[in-house]
Amino acid sequence: MLRFLTSGESHGKCLVAILEGMVAGLGVKPESIDRELARRQEGYGRGGRMTIEKDRVEILSGIRGDKTIGGPIALMIANKDFKIHELPVVKRPRPGHADLVGVLKYGRGDVRDILERASARETAARVAVGAISKIFLSEFNIDILSHVVSIGGVTADTEGMSFEEIKRRSSASPMHCADKHVEKKMMTRVDEAKNSKDTIGGVFEVIARGVPVGLGSFVHYDRRLSAKLCAALMSIQAVKGVEVGLGFQVSRRLGRDVHDEIFYDKKKGFYRKTNRAGGLEGGVSNGENIVLRAATKPYATLMSPLRSVHIESKARESATVERSDVTAVPACGVVGEAMVAFELAKSLLEKFGGDSLKETRRNFDGYLKQVREF
Amino acid sequence: MLRFLTSGESHGKCLVAILEGMVAGLGVKPESIDRELARRQEGYGRGGRMTIEKDRVEILSGIRGDKTIGGPIALMIANKDFKIHELPVVKRPRPGHADLVGVLKYGRGDVRDILERASARETAARVAVGAISKIFLSEFNIDILSHVVSIGGVTADTEGMSFEEIKRRSSASPMHCADKHVEKKMMTRVDEAKNSKDTIGGVFEVIARGVPVGLGSFVHYDRRLSAKLCAALMSIQAVKGVEVGLGFQVSRRLGRDVHDEIFYDKKKGFYRKTNRAGGLEGGVSNGENIVLRAATKPYATLMSPLRSVHIESKARESATVERSDVTAVPACGVVGEAMVAFELAKSLLEKFGGDSLKETRRNFDGYLKQVREF
Amino acid sequence: MLRFLTSGESHGKCLVAILEGMVAGLGVKPESIDRELARRQEGYGRGGRMTIEKDRVEILSGIRGDKTIGGPIALMIANKDFKIHELPVVKRPRPGHADLVGVLKYGRGDVRDILERASARETAARVAVGAISKIFLSEFNIDILSHVVSIGGVTADTEGMSFEEIKRRSSASPMHCADKHVEKKMMTRVDEAKNSKDTIGGVFEVIARGVPVGLGSFVHYDRRLSAKLCAALMSIQAVKGVEVGLGFQVSRRLGRDVHDEIFYDKKKGFYRKTNRAGGLEGGVSNGENIVLRAATKPYATLMSPLRSVHIESKARESATVERSDVTAVPACGVVGEAMVAFELAKSLLEKFGGDSLKETRRNFDGYLKQVREF
Amino acid sequence: MLRFLTSGESHGKCLVAILEGMVAGLGVKPESIDRELARRQEGYGRGGRMTIEKDRVEILSGIRGDKTIGGPIALMIANKDFKIHELPVVKRPRPGHADLVGVLKYGRGDVRDILERASARETAARVAVGAISKIFLSEFNIDILSHVVSIGGVTADTEGMSFEEIKRRSSASPMHCADKHVEKKMMTRVDEAKNSKDTIGGVFEVIARGVPVGLGSFVHYDRRLSAKLCAALMSIQAVKGVEVGLGFQVSRRLGRDVHDEIFYDKKKGFYRKTNRAGGLEGGVSNGENIVLRAATKPYATLMSPLRSVHIESKARESATVERSDVTAVPACGVVGEAMVAFELAKSLLEKFGGDSLKETRRNFDGYLKQVREF
Repeated sequence: MLRFLTSGESHGKCLVAILEGMVAGLGVKPESIDRELARRQEGYGRGGRMTIEKDRVEILSGIRGDKTIGGPIALMIANKDFKIHELPVVKRPRPGHADLVGVLKYGRGDVRDILERASARETAARVAVGAISKIFLSEFNIDILSHVVSIGGVTADTEGMSFEEIKRRSSASPMHCADKHVEKKMMTRVDEAKNSKDTIGGVFEVIARGVPVGLGSFVHYDRRLSAKLCAALMSIQAVKGVEVGLGFQVSRRLGRDVHDEIFYDKKKGFYRKTNRAGGLEGGVSNGENIVLRAATKPYATLMSPLRSVHIESKARESATVERSDVTAVPACGVVGEAMVAFELAKSLLEKFGGDSLKETRRNFDGYLKQVREF
Repeated sequence: MLRFLTSGESHGKCLVAILEGMVAGLGVKPESIDRELARRQEGYGRGGRMTIEKDRVEILSGIRGDKTIGGPIALMIANKDFKIHELPVVKRPRPGHADLVGVLKYGRGDVRDILERASARETAARVAVGAISKIFLSEFNIDILSHVVSIGGVTADTEGMSFEEIKRRSSASPMHCADKHVEKKMMTRVDEAKNSKDTIGGVFEVIARGVPVGLGSFVHYDRRLSAKLCAALMSIQAVKGVEVGLGFQVSRRLGRDVHDEIFYDKKKGFYRKTNRAGGLEGGVSNGENIVLRAATKPYATLMSPLRSVHIESKARESATVERSDVTAVPACGVVGEAMVAFELAKSLLEKFGGDSLKETRRNFDGYLKQVREF
Repeated sequence: MLRFLTSGESHGKCLVAILEGMVAGLGVKPESIDRELARRQEGYGRGGRMTIEKDRVEILSGIRGDKTIGGPIALMIANKDFKIHELPVVKRPRPGHADLVGVLKYGRGDVRDILERASARETAARVAVGAISKIFLSEFNIDILSHVVSIGGVTADTEGMSFEEIKRRSSASPMHCADKHVEKKMMTRVDEAKNSKDTIGGVFEVIARGVPVGLGSFVHYDRRLSAKLCAALMSIQAVKGVEVGLGFQVSRRLGRDVHDEIFYDKKKGFYRKTNRAGGLEGGVSNGENIVLRAATKPYATLMSPLRSVHIESKARESATVERSDVTAVPACGVVGEAMVAFELAKSLLEKFGGDSLKETRRNFDGYLKQVREF
Repeated sequence: MLRFLTSGESHGKCLVAILEGMVAGLGVKPESIDRELARRQEGYGRGGRMTIEKDRVEILSGIRGDKTIGGPIALMIANKDFKIHELPVVKRPRPGHADLVGVLKYGRGDVRDILERASARETAARVAVGAISKIFLSEFNIDILSHVVSIGGVTADTEGMSFEEIKRRSSASPMHCADKHVEKKMMTRVDEAKNSKDTIGGVFEVIARGVPVGLGSFVHYDRRLSAKLCAALMSIQAVKGVEVGLGFQVSRRLGRDVHDEIFYDKKKGFYRKTNRAGGLEGGVSNGENIVLRAATKPYATLMSPLRSVHIESKARESATVERSDVTAVPACGVVGEAMVAFELAKSLLEKFGGDSLKETRRNFDGYLKQVREF
């Protein structure tokens, strides 16, 4: 079973992740991980920190001669901004962040003990884990992208665009937006928020292409791939809503406008002409692209702070102001890719087993043949 | 750790659930479970089966003299409609259901082997498990409701209504809708769908009141209560989107209109005047009502069937027509309550421990005092 | 991931188990399960209850037309002796049983609330689960036996006997002992214990033949098959010691007398001439027979009771006398087989994946070929 | 739920462990961890490496100002002997080690890919995790020791010695042996093995004092503390047998000589005069010392190597000779302490919950009072 733990604080020494359960024989170079780390740091609307960081992974174990050996893989990302022991005590929790719930739950007198771990800085470790998951998936021709579909109410239109097209266009966009026409408007919306010392959220979409039919299961509630993928996205800081395929639109349509009719072709096997289900039926992948969207709230750290309470004196005060981004929807999308990649890699290994890439691939190919010949 | 397994097919002998990890000393009567089972069978728009069923639970173990004893609790719900061995083979998978993915994944030649388990009939077992979870939560003054907030695009307005008011009103409504003004319109929408041999979906909301600050955690991605609750709802058949608090609205608002400012009062302690976060900050309960919404698609079984393919001959055919409801959003809401109740009970036991109700309650009370005196 | 939950009390309505994660397409008949249940009830030295019971399984779900369909399998074993509600309150805990720890942990005033679940009656449900695991394993030519190697200090000698020979001989023995020469002496030892109103323990051995090289892993402590198998055996009531291969003898030998030298043969591939490791090296199966032994203590219920304390009055009293066996080592062995079968089936599915028997077997065969051609 | 992952190879850059789920507010200094790391390196019979290493932990996260903050704790132990990329390819697997099973399972052509992770070097990371677990347990007055009870058949006699006495004496012994009289004989046995270029095993005992009644549970097979503790010990390299209390001796005694009679005293509450059960009844701690023993085999690396096969050419060759200890039973004991400490800390947190030391302690104290007043 693929699993991982991450650790590290925002201004601590470093972030560390251990990924356990990956097959042996997978080629992994630090550069491939660094590329994903860099993508997480991009995006119009980021604050000053992104320039400080320039994340680089150091592989501490599990890889020998650029190949995985089957043992746990430890990944370290140093914090250039390591100064946790010098930072001032924080007593005024920020609404919308874990600050207040954290000090109450863990019985701490300094909000910094909370925000250092609750910070989205932690997602760099997840992106590193996701990068390896993506490399693994790519061996099975599974590819994952994310793009920004709305910022502050401005919505992109990608209807009819292919996976490749969305990937290419969004990669070239500072907003990670595949729709050239609205990109500028999104950036203006970000600028406006910045000028009013506010923050702004949006919606990102993650698409996985090439996932075979049959990952996840309907036989038990906790084996549904749909639920796992949604939890994976909802676990990202700032996400407040998640949907699959048509998502909330299904509540406004009749049955015949929601389901994807089934067709068959000798070459393709069973297939669909529509993909309203977002690639998931009965909680199981159906062979079409998996399409997920997540709504992320504006960051909880406002430069023009909200009302709060001093946790000791209980006096009314303004919330602490911490360095922050105006928006980070593009980055959230990259984290979303990582989480989706991890969950898919895990589900793939559950279905196909295997301890070496060769073995897993043989099992995978055998199943694809079985499905084709069904 | 609270956990459960369910089993059973739609037309099999019975459904069975085993709930493991519940404290000893909790008073549980079958009637309390039956009441929840009955609520699941209600709702305007249900098909013929609901009259057949009249679910009754039989407690097979774990309870002695109406009290839990700490051992696993086995619950059985007989299927009045037990005839799985006489039912005809199914060869034409229904779009939108697990039918096709199921036969491909499990290598079956009869779609019935799939639909019997994938059917929402299974949720009766979850409701039974949820009923016990609710009884447990009620000992800590935690209460849960669900109500229908939209059907086929007709949306209820419950702005400003208290938990009690929503509960009372929705309980009295055949549509489980707390807004008298739109209830009729919703029913009309259902009738229209029925007349056009179609089905219709909607959105239900689950609210949990009385959850203490501090369930779940931000320290690791897989400990976020928000993610667990969303997975729990997404695991329900037909759900395609889930949101917390403002949900997708956060993507259209500025930061200052999204976060809930913090106040303090000697009696209440820390509190909020708004609850846009839906009771979850940093993935952790913050003491306000937990508010979740889920979008459910129209049922995949249409009386006027969609195009499909015969799984053996590969000929184009219409999908199989199985007995179905026009809509089951109210019932989905009841299942949603059950799943939320289970996850909250599990998280509560994780935080407070305890093997007897007395012990867990003592730990719970001690913590509440600690929070009050923070 | 294969998993199961059991429930039920000794004198409750029934025992229930749910097994989740079994592949589809496996042929399972109730008779095969009943045969294992019967084996658990045999054995020289059993008390009166064994005659009462005559366990029969009822399959409630997961199997259709004698084939698994991929969904959870629910198994019920009725208690002929159902009278839990009439049984007297118990206040005098038996040393060596869960009686006292149970009432303290769960805060109960009646020891019966504890002993009803702690009783070894529960193992019938495990044997049912194990029976299905064994059927599954048999599809991969993996077979499991248990036999009694010592009773009250009388020890069998099976040196040099083949798997088949031990199986055949022990099956024919009322003591489940493969060594004809000591069987009688063992029975005498049981009779003596009975006459002195005492109980007696022993050691059983479980052997699994045909397990391929490579189940379990050394890469993480909690993935070692050796540790899982030992936990599985140690989880059986009365077991106080577990060993693999030479077991405790390794502590008295030099290295050269402990390890199994490696040989190679074109037909057999890598093999050993000795099996001191008991089929497990580095916590991983090495292709030789897996050999495990467990020591079971004499039953804690003595007809001539030990000193105890009334849990309410705190007065010195004799422990409660419950109906019991003089010895149940043969039965423990059968439970041991079931637990080992479950763990092996779980590990096999982890390594080979698959949702249908056909798929798992294809993956299995592909790996065996890979190993042969290494 | 307390959990951890470790990573790292024997000659890799470093070992890393992440411990997740520890309460906030626990005082942890690196020195306390280093002390345990040093204890693992001691012991008569170690080879050359122990001098090279001098392990020191670096705390990378989770601790701020010498206190845990609730987040994951990352621990790094550098390998002074980092040269994995220069080391020669290994083609001749050592009998008794994971070498051969490893290359077959993971499909590797170089045994080094296996032995680097399978090596007992990895246990340093476990000891670091165990050190924190021990600090945590010490807050509840739970203390753990290990000592060597036999080496190569020479057995210590500690009958009647108190916990403190065994601890003091074994700490002072190069053999970690509490029995002065046999210590020398053990050392001679080690010298003899060394002189014959062989290795030698033994038995160590782990005792936990102060564990409250009620950890673990009999209600489900996988919740038995006895099984968890045995798996924890069996997961240590070289361990081939594990026993609790009397262990295998129970198979040779009558019931009345096995169980511990129950007594009551106003001050002490329920107690025993004997502890044959080793502190575990029904798989649950009973308040007496928990006593576990593990048999470790002689190390698999002999200076005078056993017969093996070249994995490529398949020619008969001698097994590879790697640097090794003549015996490491004392070190295994230290690792055993760590594993037992981790499992007890985990079980304690499961029963008592809590996110801060203060909260867990309040719950713990409340329960102890409840037990006293039972």
